[in-house]
Amino acid sequence: MNKFSIGVDLGGTNLRIAAVDEQGGLIEKVTLGTRISLGPEYVIGDMCEAIQRMSEKYRNGASLLGIGIGVPGIIDAQTGLVRESPNLPGFVDYPAGALIEQRLKTVVILENDANVAALGEKWLGAAKDYSDVAILTLGTGVGGGVVLGGSIWRGTNGMAGEFGHTTVEPDGQPCGCGNRGCLEQYASATAVVRMAREAIASNGASALARAAHSDPEFSAKSIYNLAMQGDEDARRIFRYVGRCLGIVLSTLVNSLNLPIYVIGGGVAGAWEAFSPSIFEELRRRSLVYAATAPHDPSATQEGASAHVVAGPGHKTIVTRALLGSDAGLFGAARLPMIAKARR
Amino acid sequence: MNKFSIGVDLGGTNLRIAAVDEQGGLIEKVTLGTRISLGPEYVIGDMCEAIQRMSEKYRNGASLLGIGIGVPGIIDAQTGLVRESPNLPGFVDYPAGALIEQRLKTVVILENDANVAALGEKWLGAAKDYSDVAILTLGTGVGGGVVLGGSIWRGTNGMAGEFGHTTVEPDGQPCGCGNRGCLEQYASATAVVRMAREAIASNGASALARAAHSDPEFSAKSIYNLAMQGDEDARRIFRYVGRCLGIVLSTLVNSLNLPIYVIGGGVAGAWEAFSPSIFEELRRRSLVYAATAPHDPSATQEGASAHVVAGPGHKTIVTRALLGSDAGLFGAARLPMIAKARR
Repeated sequence: MNKFSIGVDLGGTNLRIAAVDEQGGLIEKVTLGTRISLGPEYVIGDMCEAIQRMSEKYRNGASLLGIGIGVPGIIDAQTGLVRESPNLPGFVDYPAGALIEQRLKTVVILENDANVAALGEKWLGAAKDYSDVAILTLGTGVGGGVVLGGSIWRGTNGMAGEFGHTTVEPDGQPCGCGNRGCLEQYASATAVVRMAREAIASNGASALARAAHSDPEFSAKSIYNLAMQGDEDARRIFRYVGRCLGIVLSTLVNSLNLPIYVIGGGVAGAWEAFSPSIFEELRRRSLVYAATAPHDPSATQEGASAHVVAGPGHKTIVTRALLGSDAGLFGAARLPMIAKARR
Repeated sequence: MNKFSIGVDLGGTNLRIAAVDEQGGLIEKVTLGTRISLGPEYVIGDMCEAIQRMSEKYRNGASLLGIGIGVPGIIDAQTGLVRESPNLPGFVDYPAGALIEQRLKTVVILENDANVAALGEKWLGAAKDYSDVAILTLGTGVGGGVVLGGSIWRGTNGMAGEFGHTTVEPDGQPCGCGNRGCLEQYASATAVVRMAREAIASNGASALARAAHSDPEFSAKSIYNLAMQGDEDARRIFRYVGRCLGIVLSTLVNSLNLPIYVIGGGVAGAWEAFSPSIFEELRRRSLVYAATAPHDPSATQEGASAHVVAGPGHKTIVTRALLGSDAGLFGAARLPMIAKARR
């Protein structure tokens, strides 16, 4: 009999649910709004109903392995407790896992959303052939996840992978976390827009200024489009994004010497604009990278997988994510499959 | 029958050899000069003779498990090849492991010296009760090692743990590795002396200037002594050492969320002078540290081991190494014991 599991991406805006088979094939995917203003009980209720509807559809021909849920915030994966989530107010020390398990009578595994994205890219995406990978997710903020030996590396308190709060400029831009000069202040979508507004304020940056004035949703995407049209002010911003990512990646490469590092999230769509600066910084700042860089570091994943053989001659790959926002959904669906394999 | 192994610390200046029993008890320790100018064959010859003399003394009552050797440089642990070692010229792609094994007819395991120091502190020192630890070794340069799940984390190319070349100041002091602003330029013994000379040149720093003039071996130790006597110029230097270490530790804590981080090497002797700045930076720069800091972060290891229980409430310990220069010797002796346990 075929087996499948259900992956959930519980975001602050959207609640996405997918049934996925053991080979990573998508069976069905639905997106609901997250009715966060009604409180966690409603959100969990909506989620359980949608999961139930979906699992009943496919339960005849196949068996459900369980449910995996990616949650933005600090999760106690062992107990299924949501400790804290900036995007899900109300979920404070909330026993989401236990409540859902009780209601649906199946295995439920919660995990941090950046961790499940890393697991998704490791299972089916850019890091498919690797058992060790770090992923940096450039969205509204900057998140991260680490997979070591094929499993999520949670750290002692389940807080590993906070790459967004790596200090890049010791006396730089203040960050909400209390630090100054965090990567998140230079490589998130929010940061790209802030840097564009700074450029407009300081030097006029005429094309950026026109776009900011005429485009009501002046976004990292609009700034990327200008960069691709050759606007020097916009290009400079993405070079700086790349420089800061390159500094953090240099530290990761020197410290962990993993075979592959993956850049995901919405801002990764601007890969063409910022990645040359990443490779420039890496070559200059990381002796480990300099010793292990592929001939063409910006080669596509197909090119990269020629280097899959591990060992002293193994190349260090830095590449963009392949699954987009589905990485988290697939990674979440993967959780009960891995848990099952371990039993 | 009792079992023991022999640990070797092959330094550029000294060749140290110790017989250690399975409980970590030191049986005997000898120190020879490393006759590096005569070439690798002589160094290996000296080492083999000394090991043979030592093992013959104890082989009657106990069985030799093997030989572990810590080497400063890039090692292929699988094949026992020394790929490159700045302090051991002549050891280039040199099959040290195979040559020693051939001659002594016993298990020989080579490992990077910072990695064996980490293993030593994990086995018998500051990180004794932990299976995950990162160590930063502040000597002439700055090295590092990582132990995850009780084993050395080598990385894909055996190059993990290069914390000395983490970028602290993106446009800072040029480093021999080609980067600018590496930790090694601010937290090594060499850096402490350089910063003292800079202070003398720029503002006179009278006490430092007197010491530099009168002390032919003006060293990090002399500068530490002045700091402890209250000299503000000397104290400022160690505060800066602490700040830079704090920045790098913040990144490690945020990225890996390990239970313990250990600072070793000669400069760690100045712990009193630089550690307050480490904790100040950690609290400000690492949200993970802020959430998991012990009440008294500078508590001794005895105090720290009250927090050994892992899990969400586990505290993040940053502490100084306990074994001094013997960490590498004990860690090297540990290598064949672990290899044996795995068989």
